[in-house]
Amino acid sequence: MRNTFGNVFTITTFGESHGKGLGVIIDGCPAGIAVDEAFIRQELQRRKPGQSKITTQRKEEDGFEILSGVFEGKSTGTPIAIVIYNTDQKSKDYSHIADKFRPSHADFTYHEKYGVRDYRGGGRSSARETAARVAAGAVAKLMLQEFGVSINAYVSQAGHERLDKTYQELDFSQTESNIVRCPDAEAAERMIELIDETRKNRDTIGGVVSCVAQGVPAGLGEPVFDRLHAALGHAMLSINAVKGFEYGSGFEGVSMKGSEHNDAFYKEGEKIKTRTNHSGGIQGGISNGEAIYFRVAFKPVATIMQDQESIDTKGEPAVVSGKGRHDPCVVPRAVPIVEAMCALVLADYLLLNRSSKL
Amino acid sequence: MRNTFGNVFTITTFGESHGKGLGVIIDGCPAGIAVDEAFIRQELQRRKPGQSKITTQRKEEDGFEILSGVFEGKSTGTPIAIVIYNTDQKSKDYSHIADKFRPSHADFTYHEKYGVRDYRGGGRSSARETAARVAAGAVAKLMLQEFGVSINAYVSQAGHERLDKTYQELDFSQTESNIVRCPDAEAAERMIELIDETRKNRDTIGGVVSCVAQGVPAGLGEPVFDRLHAALGHAMLSINAVKGFEYGSGFEGVSMKGSEHNDAFYKEGEKIKTRTNHSGGIQGGISNGEAIYFRVAFKPVATIMQDQESIDTKGEPAVVSGKGRHDPCVVPRAVPIVEAMCALVLADYLLLNRSSKL
Amino acid sequence: MRNTFGNVFTITTFGESHGKGLGVIIDGCPAGIAVDEAFIRQELQRRKPGQSKITTQRKEEDGFEILSGVFEGKSTGTPIAIVIYNTDQKSKDYSHIADKFRPSHADFTYHEKYGVRDYRGGGRSSARETAARVAAGAVAKLMLQEFGVSINAYVSQAGHERLDKTYQELDFSQTESNIVRCPDAEAAERMIELIDETRKNRDTIGGVVSCVAQGVPAGLGEPVFDRLHAALGHAMLSINAVKGFEYGSGFEGVSMKGSEHNDAFYKEGEKIKTRTNHSGGIQGGISNGEAIYFRVAFKPVATIMQDQESIDTKGEPAVVSGKGRHDPCVVPRAVPIVEAMCALVLADYLLLNRSSKL
Amino acid sequence: MRNTFGNVFTITTFGESHGKGLGVIIDGCPAGIAVDEAFIRQELQRRKPGQSKITTQRKEEDGFEILSGVFEGKSTGTPIAIVIYNTDQKSKDYSHIADKFRPSHADFTYHEKYGVRDYRGGGRSSARETAARVAAGAVAKLMLQEFGVSINAYVSQAGHERLDKTYQELDFSQTESNIVRCPDAEAAERMIELIDETRKNRDTIGGVVSCVAQGVPAGLGEPVFDRLHAALGHAMLSINAVKGFEYGSGFEGVSMKGSEHNDAFYKEGEKIKTRTNHSGGIQGGISNGEAIYFRVAFKPVATIMQDQESIDTKGEPAVVSGKGRHDPCVVPRAVPIVEAMCALVLADYLLLNRSSKL
Repeated sequence: MRNTFGNVFTITTFGESHGKGLGVIIDGCPAGIAVDEAFIRQELQRRKPGQSKITTQRKEEDGFEILSGVFEGKSTGTPIAIVIYNTDQKSKDYSHIADKFRPSHADFTYHEKYGVRDYRGGGRSSARETAARVAAGAVAKLMLQEFGVSINAYVSQAGHERLDKTYQELDFSQTESNIVRCPDAEAAERMIELIDETRKNRDTIGGVVSCVAQGVPAGLGEPVFDRLHAALGHAMLSINAVKGFEYGSGFEGVSMKGSEHNDAFYKEGEKIKTRTNHSGGIQGGISNGEAIYFRVAFKPVATIMQDQESIDTKGEPAVVSGKGRHDPCVVPRAVPIVEAMCALVLADYLLLNRSSKL
Repeated sequence: MRNTFGNVFTITTFGESHGKGLGVIIDGCPAGIAVDEAFIRQELQRRKPGQSKITTQRKEEDGFEILSGVFEGKSTGTPIAIVIYNTDQKSKDYSHIADKFRPSHADFTYHEKYGVRDYRGGGRSSARETAARVAAGAVAKLMLQEFGVSINAYVSQAGHERLDKTYQELDFSQTESNIVRCPDAEAAERMIELIDETRKNRDTIGGVVSCVAQGVPAGLGEPVFDRLHAALGHAMLSINAVKGFEYGSGFEGVSMKGSEHNDAFYKEGEKIKTRTNHSGGIQGGISNGEAIYFRVAFKPVATIMQDQESIDTKGEPAVVSGKGRHDPCVVPRAVPIVEAMCALVLADYLLLNRSSKL
Repeated sequence: MRNTFGNVFTITTFGESHGKGLGVIIDGCPAGIAVDEAFIRQELQRRKPGQSKITTQRKEEDGFEILSGVFEGKSTGTPIAIVIYNTDQKSKDYSHIADKFRPSHADFTYHEKYGVRDYRGGGRSSARETAARVAAGAVAKLMLQEFGVSINAYVSQAGHERLDKTYQELDFSQTESNIVRCPDAEAAERMIELIDETRKNRDTIGGVVSCVAQGVPAGLGEPVFDRLHAALGHAMLSINAVKGFEYGSGFEGVSMKGSEHNDAFYKEGEKIKTRTNHSGGIQGGISNGEAIYFRVAFKPVATIMQDQESIDTKGEPAVVSGKGRHDPCVVPRAVPIVEAMCALVLADYLLLNRSSKL
Repeated sequence: MRNTFGNVFTITTFGESHGKGLGVIIDGCPAGIAVDEAFIRQELQRRKPGQSKITTQRKEEDGFEILSGVFEGKSTGTPIAIVIYNTDQKSKDYSHIADKFRPSHADFTYHEKYGVRDYRGGGRSSARETAARVAAGAVAKLMLQEFGVSINAYVSQAGHERLDKTYQELDFSQTESNIVRCPDAEAAERMIELIDETRKNRDTIGGVVSCVAQGVPAGLGEPVFDRLHAALGHAMLSINAVKGFEYGSGFEGVSMKGSEHNDAFYKEGEKIKTRTNHSGGIQGGISNGEAIYFRVAFKPVATIMQDQESIDTKGEPAVVSGKGRHDPCVVPRAVPIVEAMCALVLADYLLLNRSSKL
């Protein structure tokens, strides 16, 4: 099941960048969820290209259609199929790379794996596939709302420009107030400037998206292989251009001492809490009721507006020239994708956990 | 399938720290592989406690028995069951924590999830479960050998002490020459000293294990959700105490420019190669034939020889005192576990890839 | 994965009878298969309603669109999405059953399971869902052709009218020569007469579809739970209205003696064959190279043009009256569905078997 | 996952007839179930050889050991591993067939599939594997008891001798009162006589096991591919020697008219029931609260005490002579196996259904 993600609340995506359309089947969504199409549309808007000067100027309409699984506004428990038709395809844009392997793209590896490949816009390896995930993630968010779970992602680093605040210090209502999707105005300013400068230099940079899930009940996560953070990591690493994942104290926790790192339990009213949260809300792979937080590293976009050394499909040296309309930095548009994948994991694990006890 | 990992070459582990035994079913191992029991034993030796002054002094025998799936020394294509019986159980050691939640352990979350729990030595959440993975990983390594794939993990950081060399600069034949499993003698010395000092302070530290897989053919990896690095990340994040995973340029790649980060293709003889390897041997989620490398962050061991604030199962304040025999730093013994999980992913994806073309 | 079938060559179907459309995602189809749209269309024609006087007069267009996974006429190894839009929906036809449970339909059980249900034409439980399977099965057939496998299903019983010939005595080129899809003209005549008479009596009858797969290589099938015939049985029992499955000697074999039933091996040229084929081409769950054959029992169609006792969604007594356009006997149109499901299983197991040996 | 069955409540079996042992991992059993070892032992006794004159005289001890997943008598939600060690192996009994293919056994097909095979006693294809299923099924039964579900299988046909009563006419407390496990004394007598006569003739016969599940709540079953009866059929067809499966009206229902076959709904007190039960308790693939019943056809045992024509592994003609201790008819011992597989499906679907609604 290579194009499927999840155990109970599952999604299967399909489609290429420049084919007729792409989409997703959500299988395992419980019956009785109000499927708000306006909310799905809004989530897709957050991901779509052409939003601002720091994202690609390419236009994609991302109009979607729900073909099944919803009756009189509610999920029926049967598969929800959502299709997004491709309109702005401009296949000719890609003829110049039909027989060349773009550096650090999937052209060469698809060629090796399959023998044939749809080279138009990267085909299946295009980040356009994530639109299907965002649509499905919106449905997962609608389900999670019923359980009081909220998810907030934001840009915490663009290139070398970092946001130096913990999640506790941030006001997530500010995330959408700037084009880089950083909830801190000052840091946002620095990031936007860097991205814009990079764009002018016909180059690209990477970034980090942080994400916080609140209201997650204790008990989600499966011991051993399907620990909650392993599923989150898998989900994040499946997003185009992601190179790393860490949760809680992450790579920095390595240098801490156990006596500093351990999160002491205490009771506040009826609720059991921890004084610190280096665990990132997950202990032994299972949620403990504290906020879950993690960071996702994105590499610089591989498509640059410069000539690059490469080879062609015959193995001869070739020059790949930068053309088309691409993002100088992918993280502002990655924010809703990270949220979507997080929502999909949590919805899935919430259902999975229903069979843990008699 | 909560205790199963893999798609075609799969493992299912079972067992608790202080039950009768633990083990693994390998299902999907092709017929015809020479199953070398001495090699499995050797791999288990690398993981087992009591190896040196910087690991726990606890003795575990880790004797194993293959119950099925091997006939006249060769795999038959049927499930290979390996059982490791528990001998040094000392259940009384744990009576003092039967009704207390140890900080940053899985005690509280298991209690929330299941209502009941085997508190002896952490039960199922004990890192002893990884012995089963190492045994299975040994079989995966034996299969990979037939395809010319080699895997080398090593400690690249313990606490704040780092090894500042790239994988290309190292001689992996030196990894086993010191007790911390770092292939650089000087760095190893620094790490050992820090771990030993930490142990004397009755505290613990974290570390990083790096891993390199060489000889992996191009074409392994499934697009979209089951990218090769997403499977590797999932595998690594499923190991006890892991907090982060990065491959190729990882988190540091974030600050690079696309023009620096892209790996130019060129041809050397008949082979297509890349001039740099920031991609970490994986592009678009599929191996490109270059070395695959990644880093895995481990938190400081949660069990410390100090008194800690906590609560008991009734929600009352309680003090958890450090007892027993535990590792001051987990990474030296984590090296074979990281290799095992890496081998399991690669064996699985090698088989999975057999159906990509007609 | 409730709406997914298969292990490697998998299909996920979606859609309701009277929603916007239905369809299928084929995931795991190898790259390089020529996807012949005319052939898919032809297979859908064999399933569609309104073909003759003995099938429902309801018109469904079953026009389909391939949205992804095919590039320049060939499969690319990525998901093939096929959508069939609903056109002749006539939802008002069903308002009379919106709040009643039709006897021996899925109305009551969906209501119990999900709380909500799309009552129009049976919603997801409608046999219209099988159009998606037939489209996917056509792709599986195209793949199997490359390996020399052919599949032929036919009607061997309608009501009490039986075809009393073994598969070896039949000429499958005659199956499509009559409207009941029985390759024997005389038996076909008897069946057609009975079905037409039943239709005039506003009643329905059941039937049996037999199926033969030839050219299947030895070695397909997984021991224990996923025996080849268990997968075939699962596939057939998943078709609407199916009540039974038997392969080889089936229920009749029960009364035979072992000495009669055993299939002796012998060698013909280089090929190992069996003198009889009571095994139905499968031994120990694995194909042995002989023809695979099986029989599938279909119950009489539940929708009859008569008044029936029932209850409504409030639990009050109600009368369900027969309306609409329905089949008096489902088997003629079930023939391509049985072939499709058989093709899907064989394509899947052919790929699955690629990992059985080193 | 070739040796795994189930979706949520899953089992993975391992082991060969003459290896060190065989067993099962139950993964997904909810925490909190009292695991009664005496009950598991009793179920294994019902399956074991050597029970009476009409079963094989081979002795197998079937002593078992629970290695994990149970703590202080209760399931903990972690994998339950059960091992049954082989003791009476007598491998030399099988040396005469090491290089011959027994007719209608799995010898030839395993050879084709894997290249190597453990020929001792059929290796993995031996019906001894079902002991693991019976042990796991006992745990599933213990879980189902908590929900008021009971399962009763019995022999309804041995060779041509049939029991001509419906399940409603039988007293299941009589099933264990005779050695053939038929709850009707008169029919049992006829069956026993036939089996004993067949045994004396050094031949074998087949039989039918019927099974009834009562107390199953409405709503179990997944639409489309994983209909409840498709899962039951898959489960039954995965048992050694099974050739057919039918539920409710089955193959006989084919000749009925829709007006006879439909099950009218009515209300009795607060409960919605059906006047007849041709549906076999399942409508649209989902349980409706009525009794679920089905029939399973077993072929005559392939091992007969007579010389048979065959070939050897080199393709040369060979004679296979009957040796060893085998059953003249498999159905008496198949009764607990059918019950076990039925219990496993129902336990699984009960948990699966927990995610159907919000």
